Amino acid sequence: MTQILLLNGPNLNLLGLREPEIYGHETLADVVSACSELASELGLSLRAEQSNHEGVLVDLIQAARGVAAGIIINPAAYSHSSVAILDALNAFAGPVLEVHISNIHKREAFRHHSFVSARAEGVIAGFGTEGYLLAVRRMASLVAK
Amino acid sequence: MTQILLLNGPNLNLLGLREPEIYGHETLADVVSACSELASELGLSLRAEQSNHEGVLVDLIQAARGVAAGIIINPAAYSHSSVAILDALNAFAGPVLEVHISNIHKREAFRHHSFVSARAEGVIAGFGTEGYLLAVRRMASLVAK
Amino acid sequence: MTQILLLNGPNLNLLGLREPEIYGHETLADVVSACSELASELGLSLRAEQSNHEGVLVDLIQAARGVAAGIIINPAAYSHSSVAILDALNAFAGPVLEVHISNIHKREAFRHHSFVSARAEGVIAGFGTEGYLLAVRRMASLVAK
Amino acid sequence: MTQILLLNGPNLNLLGLREPEIYGHETLADVVSACSELASELGLSLRAEQSNHEGVLVDLIQAARGVAAGIIINPAAYSHSSVAILDALNAFAGPVLEVHISNIHKREAFRHHSFVSARAEGVIAGFGTEGYLLAVRRMASLVAK
Amino acid sequence: MTQILLLNGPNLNLLGLREPEIYGHETLADVVSACSELASELGLSLRAEQSNHEGVLVDLIQAARGVAAGIIINPAAYSHSSVAILDALNAFAGPVLEVHISNIHKREAFRHHSFVSARAEGVIAGFGTEGYLLAVRRMASLVAK
Amino acid sequence: MTQILLLNGPNLNLLGLREPEIYGHETLADVVSACSELASELGLSLRAEQSNHEGVLVDLIQAARGVAAGIIINPAAYSHSSVAILDALNAFAGPVLEVHISNIHKREAFRHHSFVSARAEGVIAGFGTEGYLLAVRRMASLVAK
Amino acid sequence: MTQILLLNGPNLNLLGLREPEIYGHETLADVVSACSELASELGLSLRAEQSNHEGVLVDLIQAARGVAAGIIINPAAYSHSSVAILDALNAFAGPVLEVHISNIHKREAFRHHSFVSARAEGVIAGFGTEGYLLAVRRMASLVAK
Amino acid sequence: MTQILLLNGPNLNLLGLREPEIYGHETLADVVSACSELASELGLSLRAEQSNHEGVLVDLIQAARGVAAGIIINPAAYSHSSVAILDALNAFAGPVLEVHISNIHKREAFRHHSFVSARAEGVIAGFGTEGYLLAVRRMASLVAK
Amino acid sequence: MTQILLLNGPNLNLLGLREPEIYGHETLADVVSACSELASELGLSLRAEQSNHEGVLVDLIQAARGVAAGIIINPAAYSHSSVAILDALNAFAGPVLEVHISNIHKREAFRHHSFVSARAEGVIAGFGTEGYLLAVRRMASLVAK
Amino acid sequence: MTQILLLNGPNLNLLGLREPEIYGHETLADVVSACSELASELGLSLRAEQSNHEGVLVDLIQAARGVAAGIIINPAAYSHSSVAILDALNAFAGPVLEVHISNIHKREAFRHHSFVSARAEGVIAGFGTEGYLLAVRRMASLVAK
Amino acid sequence: MTQILLLNGPNLNLLGLREPEIYGHETLADVVSACSELASELGLSLRAEQSNHEGVLVDLIQAARGVAAGIIINPAAYSHSSVAILDALNAFAGPVLEVHISNIHKREAFRHHSFVSARAEGVIAGFGTEGYLLAVRRMASLVAK
Amino acid sequence: MTQILLLNGPNLNLLGLREPEIYGHETLADVVSACSELASELGLSLRAEQSNHEGVLVDLIQAARGVAAGIIINPAAYSHSSVAILDALNAFAGPVLEVHISNIHKREAFRHHSFVSARAEGVIAGFGTEGYLLAVRRMASLVAK
Repeated sequence: MTQILLLNGPNLNLLGLREPEIYGHETLADVVSACSELASELGLSLRAEQSNHEGVLVDLIQAARGVAAGIIINPAAYSHSSVAILDALNAFAGPVLEVHISNIHKREAFRHHSFVSARAEGVIAGFGTEGYLLAVRRMASLVAK
Repeated sequence: MTQILLLNGPNLNLLGLREPEIYGHETLADVVSACSELASELGLSLRAEQSNHEGVLVDLIQAARGVAAGIIINPAAYSHSSVAILDALNAFAGPVLEVHISNIHKREAFRHHSFVSARAEGVIAGFGTEGYLLAVRRMASLVAK
Repeated sequence: MTQILLLNGPNLNLLGLREPEIYGHETLADVVSACSELASELGLSLRAEQSNHEGVLVDLIQAARGVAAGIIINPAAYSHSSVAILDALNAFAGPVLEVHISNIHKREAFRHHSFVSARAEGVIAGFGTEGYLLAVRRMASLVAK
Repeated sequence: MTQILLLNGPNLNLLGLREPEIYGHETLADVVSACSELASELGLSLRAEQSNHEGVLVDLIQAARGVAAGIIINPAAYSHSSVAILDALNAFAGPVLEVHISNIHKREAFRHHSFVSARAEGVIAGFGTEGYLLAVRRMASLVAK
Repeated sequence: MTQILLLNGPNLNLLGLREPEIYGHETLADVVSACSELASELGLSLRAEQSNHEGVLVDLIQAARGVAAGIIINPAAYSHSSVAILDALNAFAGPVLEVHISNIHKREAFRHHSFVSARAEGVIAGFGTEGYLLAVRRMASLVAK
Repeated sequence: MTQILLLNGPNLNLLGLREPEIYGHETLADVVSACSELASELGLSLRAEQSNHEGVLVDLIQAARGVAAGIIINPAAYSHSSVAILDALNAFAGPVLEVHISNIHKREAFRHHSFVSARAEGVIAGFGTEGYLLAVRRMASLVAK
Repeated sequence: MTQILLLNGPNLNLLGLREPEIYGHETLADVVSACSELASELGLSLRAEQSNHEGVLVDLIQAARGVAAGIIINPAAYSHSSVAILDALNAFAGPVLEVHISNIHKREAFRHHSFVSARAEGVIAGFGTEGYLLAVRRMASLVAK
Repeated sequence: MTQILLLNGPNLNLLGLREPEIYGHETLADVVSACSELASELGLSLRAEQSNHEGVLVDLIQAARGVAAGIIINPAAYSHSSVAILDALNAFAGPVLEVHISNIHKREAFRHHSFVSARAEGVIAGFGTEGYLLAVRRMASLVAK
Repeated sequence: MTQILLLNGPNLNLLGLREPEIYGHETLADVVSACSELASELGLSLRAEQSNHEGVLVDLIQAARGVAAGIIINPAAYSHSSVAILDALNAFAGPVLEVHISNIHKREAFRHHSFVSARAEGVIAGFGTEGYLLAVRRMASLVAK
Repeated sequence: MTQILLLNGPNLNLLGLREPEIYGHETLADVVSACSELASELGLSLRAEQSNHEGVLVDLIQAARGVAAGIIINPAAYSHSSVAILDALNAFAGPVLEVHISNIHKREAFRHHSFVSARAEGVIAGFGTEGYLLAVRRMASLVAK
Repeated sequence: MTQILLLNGPNLNLLGLREPEIYGHETLADVVSACSELASELGLSLRAEQSNHEGVLVDLIQAARGVAAGIIINPAAYSHSSVAILDALNAFAGPVLEVHISNIHKREAFRHHSFVSARAEGVIAGFGTEGYLLAVRRMASLVAK
Repeated sequence: MTQILLLNGPNLNLLGLREPEIYGHETLADVVSACSELASELGLSLRAEQSNHEGVLVDLIQAARGVAAGIIINPAAYSHSSVAILDALNAFAGPVLEVHISNIHKREAFRHHSFVSARAEGVIAGFGTEGYLLAVRRMASLVAK
């Protein structure tokens, strides 16, 4: 079964706990489980990882080479500063989708630019946690091609 | 039945004809019909309009006040220059979702900024024409609240 | 009787309806009628037009050449992007006064610059709808010279 | 009787003497007297002060706290550099109107930004000395509320 | 006979009337007629349109697809702000030449950048109305290839 | 007893060893022990951690949620680049004080901006290692409220 | 007894009266008296001055040459524009500490830069009026060396 | 017979040899000979010079004072950096036309600005080597006045 | 006898005392006396003033209107921030020469720009105190015309 | 025997696998082995480390203090964002050489600046993997001094 | 006898001929002869050179090493672009004075910055040709030390 | 035998004489002779040229077309301003290596950007004169391919 990697960056382990007025009350476990369920309806298996460490995220992306068919990533704070994650994604052959729970264009100016967007096939921001599900749908279309 | 306005900006009438390597081969009529079908599955009616004229887009947004529950808009070239469309959307009470077929962050620098993003609840870019369908799904959740 | 053109730009047809906490509850019809009354006390006739279309505003300014003695304009959103309106005003011989209902210097940075200000004799911002009346008074002085 | 403070900044004591092609031939005394007359027609008393010293202007604004109902200020050259005047105005509770005799947007770029505009309710520029009278009218409306 | 579209943007209908010290005394009709004559000497037919409306210019460019072999455009004020015209020209397959009557590099800084230049094969500025004729000559060479 | 977290970022483990002309000869252990002693005089317990790893610092801040009443942090080099630490601090409810041993405003320009300053209640820089003790005093006042 | 000069800039005479949500309810007299008391415990005498006039602040700093051993200064609004105060401090031989009651890094962008910081040994911001006391403590250490 | 100077800057001696996909296969000798022929049809004599040396180009422009009626110049790489050539042209009384073979606005950003454009009557770019011929035609009109 | 005003700005009263490695050991009194002597040799009388107060400098410039034939000014720190001094000089009819003892172009970037330079006939920097004498010589030539 | 540390940053473990058109087909093991061999010919021992983790790289540099005589580092993606690595290198006493396999000046603009270059004795870029060998040669000269 | 080199850059050979409203009617020969006379009164010999070629100016500065005691240079247009002249001056041991006939701070923005100013002991601008004489006087003082 | 051109830009003829603390004591002749020797060991012949004239450097690069297999260039001051040298190198078919003796990234900001780097295969800076030798080694590898 085609594997998809769902990668979440720093502080997303606090989802549902931290600043719920921005990010909502769902936990990351809720999100992962909803995504897994939808993925499996669409014939995909989903592996989910979260880390607060830029280096660990790089390691995980490298490990996905030749294993996962595509990557859905919410790089969170590292979106705005990590060239290392961008380079790791550049070394990954399959499609990449970038998800932000909040609309980063409505927040501080330094959150408007993401290094990952220069690599990702698509970017979705401000769709709440539903954004992950829509990204799973899109990934299903992309890997089906 | 709850009405949704799907608004397409300049040159999107050429969809499927112009630069197909960026925008694909589907026509705008194809997209509208797929969106209408999905909207109707989700209990929504969809009204679709396209114009190359900034003023007409402003008129259409104004006309949607009190009529449509939400607006899905691909402002195309006007994303980058139109404060008038932003102001019209500011005068609209319901949710707004912004769709770009291509990933604008991978194109020329002047396409990276959209005035509409400062108003939209969510932004989706680079998901191809499937982005419209995902926006319809999200709109269904938003208007259901 | 000396004619004055009062021109209102995009979304000002919604005056009194849209964001009343910023723009107040008076409608554009109320404003126009108060201006006409004052103009006529001051011996002027006032013609008022509003459009959401940049091109229509350009057409109206051109049509005022040789007809109106002065123009009072609230270019609204087009203040910040329209070189075409500036050029049309440059081709108009009489005095131009620019009115903004809100204080644009207290709003988003992109609203701080107006192309029209480089042409206008005077600019008034943040005086609410009373700003239009004060502009009529000033126009009466200017055309009296 | 409600008191209004009319404050004029550096070099405005030379009004009518300096660069008359920009500022006209009326002296500051003429302006103050016309403003006092109008104020008094509108049921207000007007106190006028001028200083070339930033610190004196700050002192005068502080002294107006609890005494004047509103301040009309032409900060002249200090518009562009004085955070101290801005802070003093921030410590004043009533409405503030900013007047510039010339249209500062048509002059050197460093005159386009005024720190005071971020605090003022309204800004009027390029209406000549008539701008003071129009500001008195507006102040009458504001303090009447 | 090979057709060429000659497109003129906002305020060029005032040619010969407005700011003659910059643009000269010839009218747009004079220019069009001289261009038609030269075009026909060179074996081309010329269709000329002018509009003050950005949207109309976009419509006209779209309509030229498959009809005209090349476009000569003076986008005037829209040069500096219109991504919509750029996108419409991107969807046109033939050569595009951009004409400015005055030397835009000698005027205000905001007139130095033209979005259209990123698409045009060639740009000619400051050659007066003779620039149109030279563009017709060049277009004849280009479509002959 | 109320706990305070004292967090030191990259290279501060070299304190007293590295560039003593900038940072002095005291070691981090000396500083921690002086802070603990003072904290305990003021009725607080102090937990101190140092790491060269951005991710570990994020983990430590997250772990302090619901445990520590306040955080004193010297983010060192990560001040200037880490949005992840800022986000972790945003998810922490208590007061945050930022300490820099040297006056960062006298060093290279890239050291003048700190992401953490946008979150911290207070910032102290250039007070040498005594800055930590003053921050402990201030924290005692803050958590006493 | 070693003398320390405590210098407060414009509008700080309103402390406790102006914008108490930012600056608290203590008056400047309260602050000075607390600082004097602490100074005297630490074996220092403290002279305190406040002025709204940049020139007076320059005069006071010059007068402290050879008289005071150190200067604690809250330059307030003049932090952001006064090169004259910086130059006066450059002509003073002893240590300088800069205090801001609020965290200037959380306020408007123009408050983020202070000319004085390029001269001060240390800077403390956002510690409320307690910041003055901590600066007195630090000054005691500095002049003891 | 009226003389025209045709001046070509650095590397244009390689025309037809270097990067032919940008500059075409014609040599500079071909261009000069076609220009001379056209000039002579139009009643002008043409003197052509090329140099890789900025100083030589300055010398040649100076030598043309009182000799040539107009200058057609392709400053090539010196367009973007030479104030010396601009100053020499400022000391020349007749009309100046600037030619670029390629459309410099489609190339690297540093090629978009030309110091010479601030002096030239007209600028033509991207018309290939035909641009020289069109400039000769225009020069004939200009010197005829 | 023709009068010249020699105006020195903030901290120049410390000349010879402050930072002698930059400004030398001569006092302001020495400089003034040398200038007076030279002026008188050249048939001029010299009045010299120094102030640390921007407002006093403005007052002095205003007072020189109709009294002094020219002004030699070292605006010191106010060079970089004072529009008020610039405006006062704009209201003065005679020639203005600007003197800086040190070469401001070799110091911090904020010292490279002087508002006064936009008004002064000439600027001399880095000639030490001899710069004042050279300015007196030049002033003698200017007022002789 | 004198030890040299060869440090490779994120994604360089993929050397020979990732983007071979930019980085070539040699693996990192190949490079390390060639460098060791050359080092040993030149009388040096070489220790090589690679990590995707910024913090680990900082730890390794700290550990080299007093152990290695020099450091050859390819900081890869961390070149552009890591102040922490710069600070760690600042705490290292020996020479530092910076290697980039590709010519970073020909890639995206954000790759043109390296924080490490402000510390390194020398920088070599675009010499392919041979750059490492040349750096070893240079290091041998430097540590021989 | 101590030799001084007087170096004039591009287009200064046209002095008195070109743009006399900016540069006056004196020729370069007049200036050189007046300078030589004054130099010789002051016990100096003066060698004067002019070139339109940057490389020649570099050669001349190099040749002055060990020969001339000081250099007075008007780099003209090369002020704004020549790092080569700056480097040559850096290799010259004696004092350097920079002269500009016009006040470059009142002209186009690109003329406000001079690379040479970062090296020169002093800069004089806008003193007309008298500036050269004043520079000779200053040079006499400098070489006398 | 394969020829390599070694080109040195302005002021490098002073090598060993000028600023030896930056550039060392070796002369250019020493460097050239060491390079020739190494080149000949590696089977290459080396031709070396130096000029202070930008135009001469352009001429030399043009003359190397079809003659030299590769160019090693130290453009010195012209690195930062010469588009002409860049264009000449663009017209050269073989590999180009750029050498700077000092680490330009540690010097003034204007030395951080080199136009030549956009063309060169590789760049080496701060390796002292040994950088030339390493470039010869690399060139040998490149031309061997």
